[in-house]
Amino acid sequence: MLTQHNHAPLAAAPYRQLPLIPARSDGGSYDVIHDASSPAAGDCCAQQSSARHNWEMNYQEAAIYLQEGENNDKFFTHPKNAKALAAYLFAHNHLFYLMELSTALLLLLLSLCEAPAVPMLRLGIFVHATLELFALMVVVFELSMKMRWLGFHTFIRHKRTMVKTCVLFVQFIEAIVVLVRQTSHVRITRALRCIFLVDCRYCGAVRRNLRQIFQSLPPFIDILLLLLFFMVIFAILGFYLFSPNHSDPYFSTLENSLVNLFVLLTTSNFPDVMMPSYARNPWSCVFFIVYLSIELYFIMNLLLAVVFDTFNDIEKRKFKSLLLHKRTAIQHAYRLLITKQRPSGISFKHFEGLLRFYKPRMCTRERYLTFKALNQSNTPLLSLKDFYNFYEVVGLKWKAKRNREHWFDDLPRTAFLIFKGINILVNSRVFQYTMYTVVAVNGIWILVETFMLQGGNFFSRNVPWSYIVFLTIYGVELLLKTTGLGPVEYLSSGWNLFDFSVTLFAFLGLMALAFNMEPFYFIVVLRPLQLLRLFKLKKRYRNVLDTMFELFPRMASLGLTLLIFYYCFAIVGMEFFAGVVYPNCCNTSTVADSYRWVNHTIGNKTVVEEGYYYLNNFDNILNSFVTLFELTVVNDWYIIMEGVTSQTTHWSRLYFMIFYIVTMVVMTIIVAFILEAFVFRMNYTRKNQDSEEDNGIVLEKEISKEEVVGIIELYKRSSAAPETSQLQKIVLQMDKYGQMSTTFLGRRSRTKSDLSMKMYEEEIQEWYEEHSRKEESQAPLQESASASTSSLKPLSLRQRSQTVI
Amino acid sequence: MLTQHNHAPLAAAPYRQLPLIPARSDGGSYDVIHDASSPAAGDCCAQQSSARHNWEMNYQEAAIYLQEGENNDKFFTHPKNAKALAAYLFAHNHLFYLMELSTALLLLLLSLCEAPAVPMLRLGIFVHATLELFALMVVVFELSMKMRWLGFHTFIRHKRTMVKTCVLFVQFIEAIVVLVRQTSHVRITRALRCIFLVDCRYCGAVRRNLRQIFQSLPPFIDILLLLLFFMVIFAILGFYLFSPNHSDPYFSTLENSLVNLFVLLTTSNFPDVMMPSYARNPWSCVFFIVYLSIELYFIMNLLLAVVFDTFNDIEKRKFKSLLLHKRTAIQHAYRLLITKQRPSGISFKHFEGLLRFYKPRMCTRERYLTFKALNQSNTPLLSLKDFYNFYEVVGLKWKAKRNREHWFDDLPRTAFLIFKGINILVNSRVFQYTMYTVVAVNGIWILVETFMLQGGNFFSRNVPWSYIVFLTIYGVELLLKTTGLGPVEYLSSGWNLFDFSVTLFAFLGLMALAFNMEPFYFIVVLRPLQLLRLFKLKKRYRNVLDTMFELFPRMASLGLTLLIFYYCFAIVGMEFFAGVVYPNCCNTSTVADSYRWVNHTIGNKTVVEEGYYYLNNFDNILNSFVTLFELTVVNDWYIIMEGVTSQTTHWSRLYFMIFYIVTMVVMTIIVAFILEAFVFRMNYTRKNQDSEEDNGIVLEKEISKEEVVGIIELYKRSSAAPETSQLQKIVLQMDKYGQMSTTFLGRRSRTKSDLSMKMYEEEIQEWYEEHSRKEESQAPLQESASASTSSLKPLSLRQRSQTVI
Repeated sequence: MLTQHNHAPLAAAPYRQLPLIPARSDGGSYDVIHDASSPAAGDCCAQQSSARHNWEMNYQEAAIYLQEGENNDKFFTHPKNAKALAAYLFAHNHLFYLMELSTALLLLLLSLCEAPAVPMLRLGIFVHATLELFALMVVVFELSMKMRWLGFHTFIRHKRTMVKTCVLFVQFIEAIVVLVRQTSHVRITRALRCIFLVDCRYCGAVRRNLRQIFQSLPPFIDILLLLLFFMVIFAILGFYLFSPNHSDPYFSTLENSLVNLFVLLTTSNFPDVMMPSYARNPWSCVFFIVYLSIELYFIMNLLLAVVFDTFNDIEKRKFKSLLLHKRTAIQHAYRLLITKQRPSGISFKHFEGLLRFYKPRMCTRERYLTFKALNQSNTPLLSLKDFYNFYEVVGLKWKAKRNREHWFDDLPRTAFLIFKGINILVNSRVFQYTMYTVVAVNGIWILVETFMLQGGNFFSRNVPWSYIVFLTIYGVELLLKTTGLGPVEYLSSGWNLFDFSVTLFAFLGLMALAFNMEPFYFIVVLRPLQLLRLFKLKKRYRNVLDTMFELFPRMASLGLTLLIFYYCFAIVGMEFFAGVVYPNCCNTSTVADSYRWVNHTIGNKTVVEEGYYYLNNFDNILNSFVTLFELTVVNDWYIIMEGVTSQTTHWSRLYFMIFYIVTMVVMTIIVAFILEAFVFRMNYTRKNQDSEEDNGIVLEKEISKEEVVGIIELYKRSSAAPETSQLQKIVLQMDKYGQMSTTFLGRRSRTKSDLSMKMYEEEIQEWYEEHSRKEESQAPLQESASASTSSLKPLSLRQRSQTVI
Repeated sequence: MLTQHNHAPLAAAPYRQLPLIPARSDGGSYDVIHDASSPAAGDCCAQQSSARHNWEMNYQEAAIYLQEGENNDKFFTHPKNAKALAAYLFAHNHLFYLMELSTALLLLLLSLCEAPAVPMLRLGIFVHATLELFALMVVVFELSMKMRWLGFHTFIRHKRTMVKTCVLFVQFIEAIVVLVRQTSHVRITRALRCIFLVDCRYCGAVRRNLRQIFQSLPPFIDILLLLLFFMVIFAILGFYLFSPNHSDPYFSTLENSLVNLFVLLTTSNFPDVMMPSYARNPWSCVFFIVYLSIELYFIMNLLLAVVFDTFNDIEKRKFKSLLLHKRTAIQHAYRLLITKQRPSGISFKHFEGLLRFYKPRMCTRERYLTFKALNQSNTPLLSLKDFYNFYEVVGLKWKAKRNREHWFDDLPRTAFLIFKGINILVNSRVFQYTMYTVVAVNGIWILVETFMLQGGNFFSRNVPWSYIVFLTIYGVELLLKTTGLGPVEYLSSGWNLFDFSVTLFAFLGLMALAFNMEPFYFIVVLRPLQLLRLFKLKKRYRNVLDTMFELFPRMASLGLTLLIFYYCFAIVGMEFFAGVVYPNCCNTSTVADSYRWVNHTIGNKTVVEEGYYYLNNFDNILNSFVTLFELTVVNDWYIIMEGVTSQTTHWSRLYFMIFYIVTMVVMTIIVAFILEAFVFRMNYTRKNQDSEEDNGIVLEKEISKEEVVGIIELYKRSSAAPETSQLQKIVLQMDKYGQMSTTFLGRRSRTKSDLSMKMYEEEIQEWYEEHSRKEESQAPLQESASASTSSLKPLSLRQRSQTVI
C-alpha cells in the first residue's frame, strides 16, 4: 500500500493533512497549550484559527481512519476530497444507517402485501407498487451519496455496490412495469431484494457470514459431489436390484430410484423405502444399511469435518487480517496526529480532538481516562506503541471506584447492623442452597401439579395456594437480596436480573389469574423458567451459558443469514407454488393421506379426518417461512415435496432438493461455528486455568487532584471551551473526602477478539513482524526500519490512493 | 514403579534374570561369539549350555516386555515365576486367542438358536444348553489359565477379569437351570455375553473404544441433563398451551407432552406434532420453532462440541500414556539384554535372540536389517537411545532395492524396446486421461442405458454390445499396464488393485450374463464401481480416500462396538417384545395404519394394503438387529415404539428412549472421531506441505558383502545353527552381479501413531523428560540420572512386583 512516500527526514516533514485544505504554514504552533516552552506560542490569531481548522480536519480524518479500521472498511474507499468528505460524513451516521435499514426492511416487508399476500395485509397493486418505487428512490439517493463519496472510479470497482446498482435497476424497471400493467407478473427477482438488507451498515455480521459461507463452499462442493456420486451409483444398483419387484414403488424407474435415495440421504423415508424389498427378501436390508453407513454416517460427517476445518482456518485468517487492518488504521491516524515538534507521540490535546470526532458522546473525564489508560510510559505523549491499544481501551466504561464496600456503610449504626446482617445472610451458602432447594421443590411441585391436571381450561379456577406460597418466598428473597446487596449491585449480575424478571413475570401472572385476565395467561406458563436457576450450581453449565451469551450476537447474525436464504426461497416458492396445495389436492400421489380432509358422519357423530399437510403451503410469505422451516428440520419433507410435485411438474423437486442442499450448507456452517466457538473457549479455559473468575476486561487508573485541575486549566485556556463541569465535580468530591486522588475502573465485556488475542499471542507477534516486513518491501526506498515508531512516513492521501488503484 | 532397586555400581551388578532359574555364574561369557577378545571365551560346555538357557529366559522375558508394551498390557500382570511363565506362554499365542474368540462368538451366536430363534436355525433346548455349557467350560479353562499366570492376588485385583468371572458364574447357573427345567426362562443376562467377546485379545480396539465412550460420558450427561431439563420445561408449557385443544392428541396429558417432545428432539414426528395446533392458531408454530432451535440446533450441537473436545483431549492423553508405556517396556527389555562387559548396548547376538521370541517368523536377513536400521551410531552395540525406536522399525518389511528400473531390462533388445514403449505409453498423461474419458463415457452410458430401461428382469436378455466394448477397453488397459509396469509393480498400488478387481468382476459378470447364471447377476450390478476411478483426478479426493483407508480399522472397531450395544439391546428386546407385533396388531394405537395388512378384493383384483411395520419386530435376533438399525437411523422410530407400546405397557417406551440415548452417545463419538481424525490429518498435511507424496514409512539400508559373510560365520560358529541359506543367497547374488553391497528398503504403511509422533514432536520431548523426572522422584535413593543409558538399574522382578502391589 505504501509504495510511494516522501522520505525527507522527519524533523523537516510537512504535517500530514487533507490535501483539500491550504497547508498550514507552521503547524507546530497548535499544541502550544500543552507545550508552553514552544517558541511559536505567540502566533497571530488569524493564523491560529486557520490552523485550528486544519487540526480539526486532521482529527476528523484520523477518526475516519479509526472507524474504517474498526468496521473493516477498505482504505481505498477513504474520502479523497472535501466533497467526498461531506458525502462520507452524510452517509456515515446512525440516521443514514437507519434510513438504509428501514428502506431495505420496507422492501422486504412489501412481500407481505404483494400478490400472494397475507390475507389481512393485502394492498392494492397501485399502493404497493408506489411504495416500492418510493423505497427504490430512496435507495437511488443512498447510492448517489455513495457515488459522491467514493468517486465514479472507485464506485464501479466496488463489487457489492455494483451488484446492488444492477439489482436496483432491474427492480426499478419491474416496479414500473407492474405499475403500468396494473398486474403482477412472475417476479422472481424480488428474491434479490435481500441484497439491500445485506448491504446495510448494520448487517456487517451477515455479510461476514455470507463471505464465510462462500469461502467454505469449494471443499463443501467437492465432498457433495462425492456424496452425489455414490448416490448415483447406488441408484443404479438399487434400480437393478429392486425394480423387478412390482410391489416396490420406490425403485420402479431410475428417476424414482434417484429421488428416493436422495430423500433417504435425509433419512426422511427410511424404513418405508426399505420395507417392500425387505418384505420380499430380508437380505435386501444390507443394501440400505451399506448405503446409509457410507452416505449418512461417513460422507455426511466428512462434510462437517471439511467445513469445520475450513471454518477454523478462515476464522483465524479473518482475525489476522482484521487485526492487521486495525493496526494500519491506527498507523494512519497516528500520522495525522503527531506534530513537527514532537514527532514521537500524540499529546492529550490532539487525542482529545480525535475522540471528539470518533466518540462524540464520550465525556471529558472518560477521554482523559482513556488517554491515561493508553499512556503506559507516563510521559505526556502517547507513543505509537501505546496508541496500538486504542481499540481495546476506547470501549471501556469508566466508573469511580467505590470507597464504600456496601451501600449502607453511611447509614446509622443500628440500620447498618441490620443491613450488614442481611448482607451476610444473603451471601451465605446456607441461604443460597436453601433457595436452590425451594426452586427444586417448586419444580417438582409444578411437575406433579401439572401431571394431576387432565387437560382443559386451567385458568378459570382460583389461584392455587402453592403459587402464592412460592411466589412469596421468591418475593422475600428478592427483597432481602436487594436490601442486602443494594439495588445497583443486585441488578449488575445477569443471574439476578434473570431472577428478578422471572419473579416479576410470576407476579404479573398471579395478577392475571386473580383478576381472570385471559390474554395474560401465558405468563403463568413461564413459571417453570424459575428452574433455570438450578443451573448456576455446576461450573460446566455456567461455562456453557456464559459461552452462549458470548455467542449470542454471532448466532443471531447466523440466524438472520438463514432468514435471508429463507426469504429468497420463499419468494421463488410463492411465485411457482402459491395456491398449489389444498385439502384433498393430491389424491393421485403416494402421499395422498397426508393431504386428506374428510368429514365422515358415522352414526350421529361427525369425524373429521385431517392430514393437515395442505397447511404447509406457499400461499403467502409467512406460510412459506413455516414451510421452509419444516423443510429445514427435514423430517417428512418429502411429503411436502411430493404433494407440490403431484400438483405441478416433477421439476419442482429441484427446488426442494436445492433448498435442502442450501440449508445443509448453512446448517453445517452453524454446527461448525458452534463447535469452533466451544472448542476455542474450552481450550482458552484450559490455557488460563488460574484466572478462574472471568469478569470481562477491567482496567484500573488513578487520577490525582493536580492532574484534574491541570486538565480543567487546559480546557479553560483553549478557546474551544468544552464542558468541564464533570471534572470540577470530581475535584469537589475529592475535596469533600480529603483525598488526593481517585481511582477509576474501566470495564467492558470480553469479546471473541480478546480471547483470540490471548490464544494466538505468539503468532500475533509474528504476524506483526511479517506485516511490517511486507510494508518495508513494498517501500524499498525507505532506509529506516518501519516497525519503529519514528519511521512513520508522512504521506499524502493522493499519493497513496494513486498507488492503490 | 521402580521404588526399590539394587543400586550397586553397574560393573558389579548381577545380570538381570528371571528369579526362577539358577543364577548364571558368569553371564559375561555368552556373547563370546561377537566379542572374541573376551577372556571368558573358553568356558566349559556344561556351563555354556546352562548359561545359554539363562540367556534364552532373558530373551523370552524381554520379548514379553516388548509385547506388553505393544499391547498396552500393564506390567503388574507380568508373569512372576516359572509356572506363571508357562501359563503366560500358553495363554499368549494365536491358537489360544482364536479359542477365546471362537468361544465368545459361539456364545453370542447361540442367540440365533435359542428360544425366539431364527426359524431355520432353531435347536432343541437340550442341544443349545449343552453347547452353552461346553462354551462356558472353555471359558472356565481360559480363566483358570489366566489365574495361574496372574496369581490369585493379581487376578482378583484385575477388574475386567473379575467382572468376567461373575458373569460366567451367573451364566453357568442359568445354563444349568435351563438344562434341568428343559425350558427357557427370561434370561436378560444373556445380554452380558458380549463381555466374553470384549475381553478377547483380538478385541483390544473395542475395549479402547468402550473406555473412551465411558470417559466421554460425564460431560455428555451434563449436557444431556440440560437437554432433558429444557424438554421438561417445554413439556409443561406445551401441556398448558395446547391441551385445551381437544383435536390435538399430542399434548393431551403431561406424559404425552413429554413423550412427544422427546420424539420431537429426534424430529421424527415434526410437522405432524405441530399440525393440530398450527391449524387452530398459526402462531403456535413459534413454540415449536423455539423448541427446535434451542434443543436441536443449539444444545444438540453443544453436545457434539463437548464430546468432540473431550475426545480430542482423551486421544492425546491416550497417545501419551501409550507412548510412555512403550518406552518403559523398552527400558525393561533393554535391561535384560545388556551384558556385564558391555553395559552400554545390546550386541547383535542378543538382539537376534530377542527377535527369535518376539517375531519368530522373521528371517535372519530381516533380523540383521532391523538391527542395522536401529543402530544409528554404527558401533557394534545398540544403545538404549537406538533401542527406543524398536517399535517403529520392527514392523518394516524389507526388500532388496531393485537394481533394474523395469522388469524387462534384462530382455533382448527388441522386446525391451517394445515393453519400454508400452511403459512410456502407460505412464503418459494422454493415456491416463484417455482412460478417464472412457470411464466417464462408460458412466454416462450406464446412466442413459439404465434410464431407458423400464424395470423388469434385465438379465434374461443378451449381453449388450456396449458392455463388451467397454470391458474390452478395460481389458486392454489392464494388459498394457501389467506388461508395461510388470505385474508386481502394477499390483503394488491400491488403485491398480482396485481397477484389477473391478475389471475381473465385470468379466465374471459377462460370463454370468453369457451363460445365463442367475445367481451371479449381482456382479453385473457392480459395473458402476468402475466410476470410482474418476476420483483419482482430484487431490482432495485422494486425501479423503487415503484418510478413509487409514481410518478403516478404527471405524471397523467402532462399528463392532456399536454391534455389541446392539446385541445387548437385541437380547433385552427379544426377551420382552418377541412376538408382540404382527399384522393388524395395533389397531387401537395412533400408528395403526403402519401395521395394517388388508386383502381387499375390488372387482376381480386383489389389492393388498400393507403397512409393513410389523416386519420391524423383535422376533429373532436378526430381525432385532434390523429393527435396532432402523431405530438408530431415527426416522419414524416412534412408529415402532408406539406399535410395541400399544401391545405392551407404556413402560416399553423407556427401552426405546434409552436405546436412542445410547446410540446418540455412540453416534456422537463416531462423529467426533471422524471429525478429529480428519482435522488432525488436514493439520498434518498443512504442517508438512513439502512432503507431498506420502508412501508410508520407508527406510533404506545398505549391507556390504563382508557384513553378510560375517553374520554367516557368526551363525555357523554358534551351536544354535539357524537357517543361513537366505543370507548365502544374498552373497551369491552379489557375486553374480559383482556388487560389493546390496541396498535394502524397509517399508510399512503410516499409522496414526506415526502422524501423532510428528504432530506432537515438541510435546513428546517434554513428556519424556517429565516421565524420567517422575521415575527419578519415585527412586529418591538413586544418585545417577535415570534418563541416561548407563543408569538403568538391574532389578529383580520379585522386588518390583512387591512394590507394585
